[in-house]
Amino acid sequence: MNEKRVGTRTIALAYPPSVLSCAAVGGKMESQGPLASFFDELGQDSFFGEKTWEKAESTMQKKALQTALNKASLKPKDLDYVLGGDLLNQCIGSSFGLRDFGIPFYGLYGACSTMGESLSLAALLIDGGYARTAAAITSSHFCTAERQYRMPVPYGSQRPPTAQWTATASGCTILTGEGNGPYITHVTCGKIVDRGVADANNMGAAMAPAAYDTLAAFFRDTGTKPSDYDLVLTGDLGTLGHDIVREFFMRDGIDMGEGFQDCGLLLYDRQQQDMHAGASGCGCSAAVLNGYLLSRFRDGSLKRIVFAPTGALLSPTSSFQGESIPGICHAVCISCDK
Amino acid sequence: MNEKRVGTRTIALAYPPSVLSCAAVGGKMESQGPLASFFDELGQDSFFGEKTWEKAESTMQKKALQTALNKASLKPKDLDYVLGGDLLNQCIGSSFGLRDFGIPFYGLYGACSTMGESLSLAALLIDGGYARTAAAITSSHFCTAERQYRMPVPYGSQRPPTAQWTATASGCTILTGEGNGPYITHVTCGKIVDRGVADANNMGAAMAPAAYDTLAAFFRDTGTKPSDYDLVLTGDLGTLGHDIVREFFMRDGIDMGEGFQDCGLLLYDRQQQDMHAGASGCGCSAAVLNGYLLSRFRDGSLKRIVFAPTGALLSPTSSFQGESIPGICHAVCISCDK
Repeated sequence: MNEKRVGTRTIALAYPPSVLSCAAVGGKMESQGPLASFFDELGQDSFFGEKTWEKAESTMQKKALQTALNKASLKPKDLDYVLGGDLLNQCIGSSFGLRDFGIPFYGLYGACSTMGESLSLAALLIDGGYARTAAAITSSHFCTAERQYRMPVPYGSQRPPTAQWTATASGCTILTGEGNGPYITHVTCGKIVDRGVADANNMGAAMAPAAYDTLAAFFRDTGTKPSDYDLVLTGDLGTLGHDIVREFFMRDGIDMGEGFQDCGLLLYDRQQQDMHAGASGCGCSAAVLNGYLLSRFRDGSLKRIVFAPTGALLSPTSSFQGESIPGICHAVCISCDK
Repeated sequence: MNEKRVGTRTIALAYPPSVLSCAAVGGKMESQGPLASFFDELGQDSFFGEKTWEKAESTMQKKALQTALNKASLKPKDLDYVLGGDLLNQCIGSSFGLRDFGIPFYGLYGACSTMGESLSLAALLIDGGYARTAAAITSSHFCTAERQYRMPVPYGSQRPPTAQWTATASGCTILTGEGNGPYITHVTCGKIVDRGVADANNMGAAMAPAAYDTLAAFFRDTGTKPSDYDLVLTGDLGTLGHDIVREFFMRDGIDMGEGFQDCGLLLYDRQQQDMHAGASGCGCSAAVLNGYLLSRFRDGSLKRIVFAPTGALLSPTSSFQGESIPGICHAVCISCDK
């Protein structure tokens, strides 16, 4: 047995898998945002030709995987695994979206950290010699999430300023053992962290301690600092949660700098689109990675980033029963050099 | 990159991880069944000292992991990973049950296949050199499942004969890279299989095609046949689903024989306890494995088994929207020889 851990929690991949293909699918709000041109497909309503929002979410995953396959001239049987999940009860966005492909499937639940979790495990499966190719995928949908977590959209509930806007989006990355990069070079697994925040309209604050925990472990384990990376990105902490993480690092004497960003603050134009604290949902970080960020690797304007999506592991039931909100954050380092 | 795949879907582990410890926790019904003496702890009501059933389910997971740690004289920090999930919306059984341990966590959703999925990925993480130790865990609870999937228990709904009884149980296995067995020697990842069964009170029939698909791949990939194993176990197909799988193999000219069993048919005394088609739930196969089956490895009466839990990847929402029920089955081979 060879030992590939560095520090306490980080894996330095011996054979860093390469991004072979990627795809991002979004909805109407995403088509009006600053990253619109980076999506492969943008729907002009919330239904994607389906009769229900849940089926629409599955269709987005189907489109994201199919587009990523097409861009690499692959067929479903060329993939050894697909790893994915979503926010819907029993992860039906994934199980119905991926049902027809016939690819061996490991279902995940990491809430909005799922793009980080699926990339992590897909990278480990390839690095370990268990797969030549694997896809990582996730999705979220504003209307399915509102109905499930808060109120059905037609009720017109007012949202507090700390609330975020669940992205209607799906993103898919296909990794391969042989390729020209960018590469997944490091993986840091998250711990469940709960500092007692119980406000389901303030997820950013609830998830911030988990983001700090994983990012601090990543920097400690790899002996690097934020300025060693072009960008260090959280997934969907929004403006409040993101500032909390910056503040936590400041207390340790670490300035996260200008490169510390949040996918939830990139997806929409917060001045024009009035998204309150920012975007959220599994699909937010998935679309920002597979649309915007990976295209910046292709044009050479990004060389090395830390991608660290966060998830809030609550349910409406746990909130009704007075529980606080546990968070988790899974980080990967993506680099144009092995 | 070394290639460890055999056939199309099966991994033959180069360094088969060993079972270091295990634990099974159950409720009142489980304490009245034929496997009662194999549990580490049996609650005498459905609450385990908590005020809600959901919190009770989390507590079962906590007890299962803590008991498995205690039996191996381990502390939480000795585990490199815990992999787990459950049936509750957003998998809160796991996130709240595992919250206080501070162990790096990969959350899974495989419905009732979760014990197979978590064992598979834990074994791969150890075999690949990413972990020295890892725990696989899951749970289910009759009352949380009834409330979520069907009707709250106090309504007293009548159950059709094909219905199964969700086990109130949790099971945990701790794997390690160095040990004296039994070992996880092979892992076969499931595909999502949907043959159009839409009756949420007949999960066994819905999941049977997935069980057949994975088991057939396992036998084909490994060049073995059912009689090469002391037992070949599905997770919770119940009497109807189990017979369907036997029939599918019979059409291929393969007699599954007496050793083909189902954890859902072992957990309760179906004559005395009136469980209709058998037990179900993630906790069913988890408790049967970690209570009964692994103790039979210890006493030498089992040498090699295939453990293949099945999951139904539906939700109440998908059923309301007219969808059929996709199934999945993850298989591992457990053997006293490497």
